[in-house]
Amino acid sequence: MKSLSFHYQNARIEEKTLLESIHALDEYTTHLRAVVQTGGYESDEASINLCDDMEMHQTVADMVAQKKNPALKYIFVVGIGGSNLGTYAIYNALQGAYSELTDSAMPKIIFIDTVSTALVTNLQTILSQKIKNANEICINVISKSGSTTETIALFEILYSLLKNRFESVDERVVVTTDENSLLHKMAEEKGFATLFLPKKVGGRYSVFSAVGLFPLSLAGINTSALLAGAKAMREKCLSEKENPALVSTAIKYFYYAHDICITNNFFFNPELEMAGKWYRQLMGESIGKEHDIHGNVVHAGITPIVSIGSTDLHSMAQLYFGGPRDKFTCFVYASPDQKISIPEERVFPELVKNIAGKNLEDIMMAIYGGVKAAYQKNELPFAEILLPEISEETLGQYLQLQMMEMMYLAKAMGVNAFDQPNVEDYKEETRKLL
Amino acid sequence: MKSLSFHYQNARIEEKTLLESIHALDEYTTHLRAVVQTGGYESDEASINLCDDMEMHQTVADMVAQKKNPALKYIFVVGIGGSNLGTYAIYNALQGAYSELTDSAMPKIIFIDTVSTALVTNLQTILSQKIKNANEICINVISKSGSTTETIALFEILYSLLKNRFESVDERVVVTTDENSLLHKMAEEKGFATLFLPKKVGGRYSVFSAVGLFPLSLAGINTSALLAGAKAMREKCLSEKENPALVSTAIKYFYYAHDICITNNFFFNPELEMAGKWYRQLMGESIGKEHDIHGNVVHAGITPIVSIGSTDLHSMAQLYFGGPRDKFTCFVYASPDQKISIPEERVFPELVKNIAGKNLEDIMMAIYGGVKAAYQKNELPFAEILLPEISEETLGQYLQLQMMEMMYLAKAMGVNAFDQPNVEDYKEETRKLL
Repeated sequence: MKSLSFHYQNARIEEKTLLESIHALDEYTTHLRAVVQTGGYESDEASINLCDDMEMHQTVADMVAQKKNPALKYIFVVGIGGSNLGTYAIYNALQGAYSELTDSAMPKIIFIDTVSTALVTNLQTILSQKIKNANEICINVISKSGSTTETIALFEILYSLLKNRFESVDERVVVTTDENSLLHKMAEEKGFATLFLPKKVGGRYSVFSAVGLFPLSLAGINTSALLAGAKAMREKCLSEKENPALVSTAIKYFYYAHDICITNNFFFNPELEMAGKWYRQLMGESIGKEHDIHGNVVHAGITPIVSIGSTDLHSMAQLYFGGPRDKFTCFVYASPDQKISIPEERVFPELVKNIAGKNLEDIMMAIYGGVKAAYQKNELPFAEILLPEISEETLGQYLQLQMMEMMYLAKAMGVNAFDQPNVEDYKEETRKLL
Repeated sequence: MKSLSFHYQNARIEEKTLLESIHALDEYTTHLRAVVQTGGYESDEASINLCDDMEMHQTVADMVAQKKNPALKYIFVVGIGGSNLGTYAIYNALQGAYSELTDSAMPKIIFIDTVSTALVTNLQTILSQKIKNANEICINVISKSGSTTETIALFEILYSLLKNRFESVDERVVVTTDENSLLHKMAEEKGFATLFLPKKVGGRYSVFSAVGLFPLSLAGINTSALLAGAKAMREKCLSEKENPALVSTAIKYFYYAHDICITNNFFFNPELEMAGKWYRQLMGESIGKEHDIHGNVVHAGITPIVSIGSTDLHSMAQLYFGGPRDKFTCFVYASPDQKISIPEERVFPELVKNIAGKNLEDIMMAIYGGVKAAYQKNELPFAEILLPEISEETLGQYLQLQMMEMMYLAKAMGVNAFDQPNVEDYKEETRKLL
């Protein structure tokens, strides 16, 4: 397996300080090992057991076999937040920008997340212009609680549009939810296929459950390799030595304790932007907390931001180099598996002279190198995650690393990584207004 | 004209404090008025004269007339940062998510910004699958300096791919750059069409120049209405009373002075996300400064972040409500011009009971109302920008408001709104590595 590597020699923290932080988490590391040893889905950290749950993976594979067919063009993933961000991250990482315009790599996933009139208007057009029979689509409705307003509203519209045209659309619906949720019961009544995620696995930790695996596998993505990557990384994140989750936790905790409250995930592959958005939820909800575990008001949290190289060098770099020293940066760089070269015979040979014959990766690497040098010169702290390729295996490793880091980081900060109590603040008022 | 409105009753600042801040900028307001009165492009703030430059607009219109034809399918905008973000913002706002999958609204713009192997691989596939002759495309290469590494590298690849297939591709290239740049000279040598932007108009203030107007107009967007919106807003942002740019500046300056160094642009229309990314460059480069205008090291700046309603309520809301009090939020809400209703006869009538017959906007409005109530309850400061519709006119107003606010804000903070000296920090090292 090609392995992700984590580098922190530019984190600007003494090894001794990091080791103290890591040792303070010894008990929790032992607990996580026990969670894996025991297996099952009883504990808060249960999501780390998804990656080798062969029974769950087989259930998903059986459902994929039922819904797959050569005519399938579009998989509509109707879900928001934890119900689509992990899937979106992996899908985009493997497909790249503008893949939806190609005729290759069918079926494609279309993500329908919020009650946007513009989005649904385009969706109506796509359905009427591109879809001739029910076998060309599959609708995966995903809501852990079963009562997500946006998801249910969007499914009602989509279903009604399709039901008017195709009697057999019911066979093309798969509902993913908690077992025994009201949505589960109603889906069974209607005869829709259902998949479940374990009760203890929250949305932001659910990418390796049926939530992510079903749509990804149906789209032709190798979920076995994804889970193998996740499992390999789990072992590293439980180990006593060279544990990247613990080192990364110690670094982020150090800067948080020093009032550096922004984490900048800076990807040098634009196709990883959605991985950054997945991380926003993971960090935002896991450690953004009004109260600590003892009930004290702490207003804890680190604001995760996403930057794209080299795009944001022409946008945010001036702020990063010149502005406030309030950020810790984690660069992510993945080597592309293809080489695309600048022609030797150029149309503008006198402009940017030294690129003839170079390939795009050479240029991106030089820019990345230039950025790292500028960070060092400006004494800005950073770590690096290097992926030898963008593949199911390396993405499985990347996502698992981030999820386990977040469990450790919440423990270090004394907050609950698994709840999101303040989200209720707006929901109650919304219910009144509806 | 339908007008954007700005609301700040929840900014949690006394009117007196705001007025003091505004009056401190009286001299600069007078200066801006003089810039408009004088006209032309001599001053740093010259970009505010773009919106009624009829000669420039006519030059662009003539070029559009030359390059437009019924076969045109794709406009490739090859540019990065200030060379594409404004165009991208307006285009996405008017088209919405997944518009690229529809057969409607041709020609479409494809944005090619960075040296991403994945992006160019997909581009190669699109060209070979979808393009049969040169009239189906137009390539707009945009680089103010003429020497942007990514832009030149990408154009070399794109041009070589097309030149191999279509002898007449040269007629389908339009180069937008500073007059007398090396790119201008080389484009003339090759016989490519050229457009210019005024020397004093920097990339992040260039959306109303040929940089934005040419590709947008070629894509069928009404640039006259865009400029009319910009001009109407310019008047408001120069006025003595109810000047939204000055009020917004006073609010942002107040929070900056109180160490609240994150501005959260929170859009309740997902199609406005790119407007948020355009703003990131505008704010990041204009006020993110190592030195003030007197040369003192200040590390000034506010970090702009972008949130999307309701998507990010399922991702970042927990952090916003529970986490650190380090953000000022500006909500942006635009009313959609269509109504899409949830069917009265529902498939899941027992789930989210109160939505039958409601339209998507009702639901989004209720969520937005719920969020505002939660901000008030948590004593989190915010302002609101309401757009009566998403149209060329309202987008022209929105972008002009933000650009003039940024000039005022830089003045209030004592930094230069128009340079980006620290960007050189990485460029020099990159040149060595290439």
